[in-house]
Amino acid sequence: MGKTIIEKILSAHSGQECTAGDIVVAQVDFVMGQDGTSPLAIRAFENMDGKELFNPDKVALVIDHSSPSPLEGVSALHKLMREFAKSKGCRMYDIGEGVCHQLIPESGKVGPGSLVIGADSHTCTYGALNAFSTGVGSTDLAGGLISGKMWFKVPETVKFVCNGTLPKGIYAKDLILYLMGQVTADGCTYMAAEYTGEAITDLSMEGRFTVSNMAIEMGAKAGLMEADHKTFEWLKQHTDRQFQAVASDPDARYQRVLEFDVSQLEPQVAKPHRVDNVSPISEVLGTPVQQAVIGTCTNGRLEDLRIAASILEGKKIHSDVRLIVAPASRKIYLDAMNEGTLQKLVEAGAAVVTPGCGPCVGTHNGVPSDGEKVISTANRNFKGRMGNSNAEIYLASPATVAASALTGVITDPRQFVK
Amino acid sequence: MGKTIIEKILSAHSGQECTAGDIVVAQVDFVMGQDGTSPLAIRAFENMDGKELFNPDKVALVIDHSSPSPLEGVSALHKLMREFAKSKGCRMYDIGEGVCHQLIPESGKVGPGSLVIGADSHTCTYGALNAFSTGVGSTDLAGGLISGKMWFKVPETVKFVCNGTLPKGIYAKDLILYLMGQVTADGCTYMAAEYTGEAITDLSMEGRFTVSNMAIEMGAKAGLMEADHKTFEWLKQHTDRQFQAVASDPDARYQRVLEFDVSQLEPQVAKPHRVDNVSPISEVLGTPVQQAVIGTCTNGRLEDLRIAASILEGKKIHSDVRLIVAPASRKIYLDAMNEGTLQKLVEAGAAVVTPGCGPCVGTHNGVPSDGEKVISTANRNFKGRMGNSNAEIYLASPATVAASALTGVITDPRQFVK
Repeated sequence: MGKTIIEKILSAHSGQECTAGDIVVAQVDFVMGQDGTSPLAIRAFENMDGKELFNPDKVALVIDHSSPSPLEGVSALHKLMREFAKSKGCRMYDIGEGVCHQLIPESGKVGPGSLVIGADSHTCTYGALNAFSTGVGSTDLAGGLISGKMWFKVPETVKFVCNGTLPKGIYAKDLILYLMGQVTADGCTYMAAEYTGEAITDLSMEGRFTVSNMAIEMGAKAGLMEADHKTFEWLKQHTDRQFQAVASDPDARYQRVLEFDVSQLEPQVAKPHRVDNVSPISEVLGTPVQQAVIGTCTNGRLEDLRIAASILEGKKIHSDVRLIVAPASRKIYLDAMNEGTLQKLVEAGAAVVTPGCGPCVGTHNGVPSDGEKVISTANRNFKGRMGNSNAEIYLASPATVAASALTGVITDPRQFVK
Repeated sequence: MGKTIIEKILSAHSGQECTAGDIVVAQVDFVMGQDGTSPLAIRAFENMDGKELFNPDKVALVIDHSSPSPLEGVSALHKLMREFAKSKGCRMYDIGEGVCHQLIPESGKVGPGSLVIGADSHTCTYGALNAFSTGVGSTDLAGGLISGKMWFKVPETVKFVCNGTLPKGIYAKDLILYLMGQVTADGCTYMAAEYTGEAITDLSMEGRFTVSNMAIEMGAKAGLMEADHKTFEWLKQHTDRQFQAVASDPDARYQRVLEFDVSQLEPQVAKPHRVDNVSPISEVLGTPVQQAVIGTCTNGRLEDLRIAASILEGKKIHSDVRLIVAPASRKIYLDAMNEGTLQKLVEAGAAVVTPGCGPCVGTHNGVPSDGEKVISTANRNFKGRMGNSNAEIYLASPATVAASALTGVITDPRQFVK
């Protein structure tokens, strides 16, 4: 019987041939925590009588959720993280460096076959690099920091076969929102999603990160892709480290295989207050919005900023809309400045916040007002997500968000796409 | 008997020849409020049965203290401001545009002879443009919004004569901190400070704004300067409007005249927790700092960013320090990007926040932790000013802040100045 990607990765890391349903203890290659979760993990680490990290080179703490700190209490937690990282010798990504899910891939420490745990639900992002990466709670993180190990029930895999070529003006975000709507928020609970097919391989690495990032929104433990020349090209730009691609065997067993033809896809929008409350944009066209957000670990990469800039260049956003841009990392921020992309966004009226999570998690940097509607490239639109439970959040692609910022209402971006 | 600048401006705006001590009602040329003060002013406006603004073209509301909003309650206040500005037809500077005290001068609506009231204590900044501009409370602001008038007791004037040329590595900020230390925080209570002399005329307009900005820290109602070719050159870059210079008469009566020779000045630092607790940098050299801030209405202009970038270029800030940069306006942010200055700061490790007040007022964007020391280019170091009363704030020039960010301790910048 053949194996799926995740079965192979967990077999290699546990030292035992395992298949879906088995419980294994696996060695992890990298452990990450952010400022929402690390403080609790540090306290758990101390409660567990943790002395040293299993391997400081394989650990990073990231300040991204509140960066820079908006509150005294948060500042105390940041201080705790800095002191812990310094005393234990691990990498500390401080304010201004960006979102963990962009920084860890950029670090070159994750690639095909890697096993990564991170105390953030969107750790599944690195699945785009053919890695098994998944979110854990703070207490599990503490265990991981001490032991470098984690137990897993080997997940079953759902295979998504995405056939066809995405039409012009339709992006990775539209694709994953569409899949979300099809399988719903509990469609892959504790399973691995494996994204395959022409529409996936056609995506840039940036688009692939967008797709894998949202696997958790289907309940999936992982959002895996195969490694191809694009994967290795991307890795080469970030590290000299060598990785071995991990592919599912032809006779691997899947929980189910779902086929989609995406060649006629329209722009997709997730409506309040659920990520799987997805419809084609035609259903919500003309809905007024007061805030537009481009950024986050879902869509804060250079490609995303370029798409938005191509729509906003030489124009001004609508006077009833604020546009917030949150580059996903310092590198992206610098690249976007050096090539003039950021300037186009700022000239159009964007407020650029410090690289990091921006307003996505409601901690600061753009909490909406009562009764306002927000259109955002983020991955979650739960009630209260952005810090106000009386606001409504729509999720869409950077193109749709940019077009909507321009007109003040939810707008089909295809009319602006050159 | 001759008149001082402020006596002339108040005479012209009240329609009666007045001198220090008189009480007059004067017409104002511009009225400004920010997001800390405008909401109260709007409520007072309504309580006073205000219907329309005295002149919408002469009013602006600015969101700069919490930009973008870090909290639901603040977002509600921002919404109130937006709705008020829209219904009354005045200019609304929303998130991403910058600090009021940079935006109002940039708007070209203020110049020599203008009378401006603003509901922010550092409204005295525009004194550098030979205007009488001063801070008022929210209720006074409401009265000003309705009537376009304000009563004043005509202030006496203290004349500062600053002789000599500032040495290399010594800037406008060092000069005003030095004067602060000399006259103390209540040295000019309800008086107008008039800054004159070679060291003042030598300053760029940017440096002059820095000096006038801190007049309120001496208790002064205004921080006035004469208009010269630099003033008019600066104005020409921002407006076609014509202004007439206002100079004090040779026989004007001053409350006192203070002379200083600044040709031997060292870098100056205001120590916690008072702005007039000033000493030469030699007294505090080597004090460890954990956060460095470059920006605010005092020192967030292009010249300031260039000075910092010239010190930080090609280097990395100390690993125990965060460096926060807050450009004072969108224009400055864009100019700094387009010429590569911002890139140098970011490459050195700066976290750039949205143009605005940044962490200066403790509302967000860099609240320090307990026990931390901050070195900042801002104008106030009161206990708790940055959102944590267990932190200590040192005030200094952009050069001193940049040099200290590099070394992790308070550092004389002159060793880095080319």
